[in-house]
Amino acid sequence: MSSLSVAIVGASGYMGAELIRLLLQHPRVELAAVYGRRAAGQTLPRVFPQFSGVLTLPLEEFAPDRAAERAELVFTALPHGESAEAVAALRQRGATVIDLSADFRLRSPDEYARWYGSPGHAGHPAPAQLAEAVYGLPELYRRELAAARLVAAPGCNPTASILAVAPLLARGLVAADGLVVDAKSGVSGAGRSPALSTHFPEVGEGVRAYKVAGTHRHTPEIEQELGRCAGRPLSLLFTPHLVPMARGILACVYGTATEAALAGGQAVLQQALEEAYRGEPFVHVLPPDQLPDTAHVRGSNRAHLGVRLDPRTGRVLAMSAIDNLVKGGSGQAVQCMNVLRGWAEETGLGATALFP
Amino acid sequence: MSSLSVAIVGASGYMGAELIRLLLQHPRVELAAVYGRRAAGQTLPRVFPQFSGVLTLPLEEFAPDRAAERAELVFTALPHGESAEAVAALRQRGATVIDLSADFRLRSPDEYARWYGSPGHAGHPAPAQLAEAVYGLPELYRRELAAARLVAAPGCNPTASILAVAPLLARGLVAADGLVVDAKSGVSGAGRSPALSTHFPEVGEGVRAYKVAGTHRHTPEIEQELGRCAGRPLSLLFTPHLVPMARGILACVYGTATEAALAGGQAVLQQALEEAYRGEPFVHVLPPDQLPDTAHVRGSNRAHLGVRLDPRTGRVLAMSAIDNLVKGGSGQAVQCMNVLRGWAEETGLGATALFP
Amino acid sequence: MSSLSVAIVGASGYMGAELIRLLLQHPRVELAAVYGRRAAGQTLPRVFPQFSGVLTLPLEEFAPDRAAERAELVFTALPHGESAEAVAALRQRGATVIDLSADFRLRSPDEYARWYGSPGHAGHPAPAQLAEAVYGLPELYRRELAAARLVAAPGCNPTASILAVAPLLARGLVAADGLVVDAKSGVSGAGRSPALSTHFPEVGEGVRAYKVAGTHRHTPEIEQELGRCAGRPLSLLFTPHLVPMARGILACVYGTATEAALAGGQAVLQQALEEAYRGEPFVHVLPPDQLPDTAHVRGSNRAHLGVRLDPRTGRVLAMSAIDNLVKGGSGQAVQCMNVLRGWAEETGLGATALFP
Amino acid sequence: MSSLSVAIVGASGYMGAELIRLLLQHPRVELAAVYGRRAAGQTLPRVFPQFSGVLTLPLEEFAPDRAAERAELVFTALPHGESAEAVAALRQRGATVIDLSADFRLRSPDEYARWYGSPGHAGHPAPAQLAEAVYGLPELYRRELAAARLVAAPGCNPTASILAVAPLLARGLVAADGLVVDAKSGVSGAGRSPALSTHFPEVGEGVRAYKVAGTHRHTPEIEQELGRCAGRPLSLLFTPHLVPMARGILACVYGTATEAALAGGQAVLQQALEEAYRGEPFVHVLPPDQLPDTAHVRGSNRAHLGVRLDPRTGRVLAMSAIDNLVKGGSGQAVQCMNVLRGWAEETGLGATALFP
Repeated sequence: MSSLSVAIVGASGYMGAELIRLLLQHPRVELAAVYGRRAAGQTLPRVFPQFSGVLTLPLEEFAPDRAAERAELVFTALPHGESAEAVAALRQRGATVIDLSADFRLRSPDEYARWYGSPGHAGHPAPAQLAEAVYGLPELYRRELAAARLVAAPGCNPTASILAVAPLLARGLVAADGLVVDAKSGVSGAGRSPALSTHFPEVGEGVRAYKVAGTHRHTPEIEQELGRCAGRPLSLLFTPHLVPMARGILACVYGTATEAALAGGQAVLQQALEEAYRGEPFVHVLPPDQLPDTAHVRGSNRAHLGVRLDPRTGRVLAMSAIDNLVKGGSGQAVQCMNVLRGWAEETGLGATALFP
Repeated sequence: MSSLSVAIVGASGYMGAELIRLLLQHPRVELAAVYGRRAAGQTLPRVFPQFSGVLTLPLEEFAPDRAAERAELVFTALPHGESAEAVAALRQRGATVIDLSADFRLRSPDEYARWYGSPGHAGHPAPAQLAEAVYGLPELYRRELAAARLVAAPGCNPTASILAVAPLLARGLVAADGLVVDAKSGVSGAGRSPALSTHFPEVGEGVRAYKVAGTHRHTPEIEQELGRCAGRPLSLLFTPHLVPMARGILACVYGTATEAALAGGQAVLQQALEEAYRGEPFVHVLPPDQLPDTAHVRGSNRAHLGVRLDPRTGRVLAMSAIDNLVKGGSGQAVQCMNVLRGWAEETGLGATALFP
Repeated sequence: MSSLSVAIVGASGYMGAELIRLLLQHPRVELAAVYGRRAAGQTLPRVFPQFSGVLTLPLEEFAPDRAAERAELVFTALPHGESAEAVAALRQRGATVIDLSADFRLRSPDEYARWYGSPGHAGHPAPAQLAEAVYGLPELYRRELAAARLVAAPGCNPTASILAVAPLLARGLVAADGLVVDAKSGVSGAGRSPALSTHFPEVGEGVRAYKVAGTHRHTPEIEQELGRCAGRPLSLLFTPHLVPMARGILACVYGTATEAALAGGQAVLQQALEEAYRGEPFVHVLPPDQLPDTAHVRGSNRAHLGVRLDPRTGRVLAMSAIDNLVKGGSGQAVQCMNVLRGWAEETGLGATALFP
Repeated sequence: MSSLSVAIVGASGYMGAELIRLLLQHPRVELAAVYGRRAAGQTLPRVFPQFSGVLTLPLEEFAPDRAAERAELVFTALPHGESAEAVAALRQRGATVIDLSADFRLRSPDEYARWYGSPGHAGHPAPAQLAEAVYGLPELYRRELAAARLVAAPGCNPTASILAVAPLLARGLVAADGLVVDAKSGVSGAGRSPALSTHFPEVGEGVRAYKVAGTHRHTPEIEQELGRCAGRPLSLLFTPHLVPMARGILACVYGTATEAALAGGQAVLQQALEEAYRGEPFVHVLPPDQLPDTAHVRGSNRAHLGVRLDPRTGRVLAMSAIDNLVKGGSGQAVQCMNVLRGWAEETGLGATALFP
């Protein structure tokens, strides 16, 4: 069984480190190189002490030629804009790329420009690659991913939000209009660069929203995918919160129950989720008397889902809990790689959550 | 300046201890007795070591005659049902009572029976007292409280939810229908009795909802008060969450912007809150570029508010952050006492939040 | 490659759940049964939701006959006293046992009686088994473990303390007299039964010692093993602390530098640790400019060690960080199983720590 | 009752903000000005949102002339070196100064140079002021403080360490040689400037030592004061740890019991502490069956102490818990001001700890 040589660009952040952790568990992959600008020249255990005694790989300065030479498949985990450039360079050299940035998730270059553009950069930085990108949510795009050469793996907010409610929209149980997503996530989602807003004494023992009222850049991505499920464009309100924990995201999606949902009641909602995700290796719909808790998926690639109908108000609450760095990031990227290579999707991703 | 003698019934829980902390700072009050069944016979520092060297009061078994004799005003902080009995006994003996339980918050005995009744106890346990109770939210009931003999002080969920959106409903800026309240609160709200759901390793490093979809008992109370603001009955969806912190609650109220709100935009919402709370000693509307954070009100009786219009979706997000044990409990009870006695409302409640 | 059938007795606690998590990753083991009295009859995901969608094994009431029939090797994770009974019953039926309780760690039945005895139970509950037990610290007892049929796996306090300083005592670099061990550990070490001392609001945002001044039952076990390293009996002061985190223990061992250590300086101490643990799969001595951090070993079976000489005071500080549930419990038990079966010690234990 | 006008230099850090919080509660003080370089020009609620609606004071650029003009007493809370310059300038202009930096705590300029000196700055930056400085620990220097014009208020490590063991040394119950101080403190002690070592995901859910083996700059200060208590110079090993909480420090001082202590036993140690601190408004020796916990002093100026003799090893463990920002910083500074002005020491400092 020959192994696939892979590389990681952007390995000095949490997403990169998490990729390394997961790939070390993967039986069919060989980690050929890790690139990270800030820490180039240092060995990995210097930058991330959890790798002490585990591996001694040095972080290197990224160079597309060398990377494409050493690795058949490259994971890119850079800030948006930067990632597009690296991806374009790698694709031109023939490498398959799984990108964890936001650069290839929005199908419309105009939408990208609206949400990510800056005065000097009005358009999309790599339109050619945008056309070939496949949205890396295997539960929705498994078939397309099998043949993909460029994957745009979604982050934690879209993954958690979409998984929770997509089947309900697709089955006409929740109205496409008026969705509200209230997400609570851990601080690792903000990355590894220190800032006042992630300084321990500021963020511990408190909870707060941020980038509210249609200002968070993940909004259009959630709308794009849920609109596709609903069969027509939709807009929704997305509110992210920062909670004093390192990992995890809980997405609560509020929607209006349709006639069909009101007629069928709680059972039909539960059934819709269970049917949609039957056989899925990582998505689990909890029984009707349990509710998702991010503590129960920490460190794993699993999603725990739940749904409730409130007959008093005609509202539906769909919830999902994932680990933002795994199913909401690096684990999902590895899952996409498995699909793309035709391997069993659980390969290297079988670990149960670390609880407590 | 003569001082008021007060007593606390239910002093072995967090609400009781917080009352003691606050009353010790109050210049016009003398703490005559503290009652607590579980810990009766022990001194306070045995039960709550933070009082070591501060006071040596013993916890006693509650007896209405003796309590009414020693204290002109009694705070009751017992579980619902139990509290009603204690309140009735105290009122019959002439004591003024500020009750922190849910027993006198719902005006309708039928509603009470629906949400709090048990097979054996179909009706309200103290209907005579129910009739004289005043809802203890000074920002809405200041005038009524001035003459009250029985105050039903609201807890953290209603206080945070109502303060955030009441002025917007009263001014017709948010539609009465379709409100969703998503609340995130600290673990002290669950009380001091150990349980698996509040065991440190279970609740730390995770976030989860509980009692969702119209099953939380604070729902009818929020509906009652917001309906009064809106001028007509309303129903809403309330979703509480447990966040890994000891104190604090952040309430996010989602509503539909009315024509007036859409026409006036963000500014009219901000202005509505600022006008409604102008001169309030404890409610502060943050400037438009800041968002409420429970860490900034911890230990204080203050509420931080914020509101945002999302023009893309026509939604309004109104937020408030309070300390669940202070403005959402004991501090509010002290504030009610101040109103009731005609003292300046800030008396004994001036402390700034403990941050960080 | 045939697999070994194993069972777990005491699977409704954190140690049991952690064993399940690790054994699910083990390629040569089949989990035949899990026993847990409190939760007997329920499926595992009911008791530990992290196993939802992972496995559906029911928890059963323990019966030695049936257990010994189904499993060749049994892990026991019961409270002391109870564990001895289960172990004796299993050994009589021919099963190999790895015990995670304290019942077989002290070699002297008198010492056991002194520290664990109760009025009615003066002696050791299973002296026959005590004689055959091997102390389950592979770094010290690898050879003996290879032939063991009963393993007494040490817990987090002894493992962390012993690993940190054993080579320094064995090499005469630290004096046997006057050792002080100051340990800081996470709350999962207190088990899964709720109590006031592990209630989230009580234990969060604070730090405190407990069972100080020679009253903690792990003291004689540490003394037994370090005395063996030093070549003569010793007594030491052990002070455990509870820190607001779920997992992890950091042991700081303070000792007096010997002449040899003072002559050789910092380098000789560093070298002593490095030589002692060269080739060890799980023990890693950090470079001289890094210090152990429990966050860097969480979820892994690894130990991070560090040592410092303070020439001003002639003191040595030896430190080790481990995950109390893994290298300080279930991971160590699996490592012992690997040794006992002649498998590579890393089998099933290769996972890197979950950081952050 | 005329009020004292005070100013704060260095008000944009946690110590400065804590001073403001405490001074707002002080009935005899008027806060005339707050200085903070980084945030000069902004109002306080912009920098510290907990002051929203409380006060609107702007942060200003420090100028000694203006400061000495507006305030009779100035608190300085700047980094060492910088503070000395500000203090010298203020003293030359006649202001009384309470300094929270390390610049005036060491009596010997040589010791200062050894621990705080840099290549370019070999000596003490303000030797004239050093001569008049009084160490700001009222429990030891009450008389000297009454007449002081310059106070060097100690920080959290010395305060906690000294209070725990000073009376035992003074009474000859603990040997002066061989002391070990193991301290565990919250992250606010590291200040408000973001860094990787205080980034939430790095520091949460873990514990670690830092600046070990005689490298922490508070070491000589503890030695200076404890040596004075013991009646002769001493050296000790100080090991600070970072614990995942915002506030609090627990100091565990390990010493060797003297003949007197062994003869008298536990009771004589307990008695020694109780006698030493009898009548102290803020230092409380817990009863023999309780142990100090930082959670029980958070937000208050109180210290909780405990002591234990381990007859097995002849060791004494003396512990103290304080809030690092209050009794270990700003509260102590206010206490010093009260002593210096002849006010009751509790003035403005009466608040009970915020627990939970």
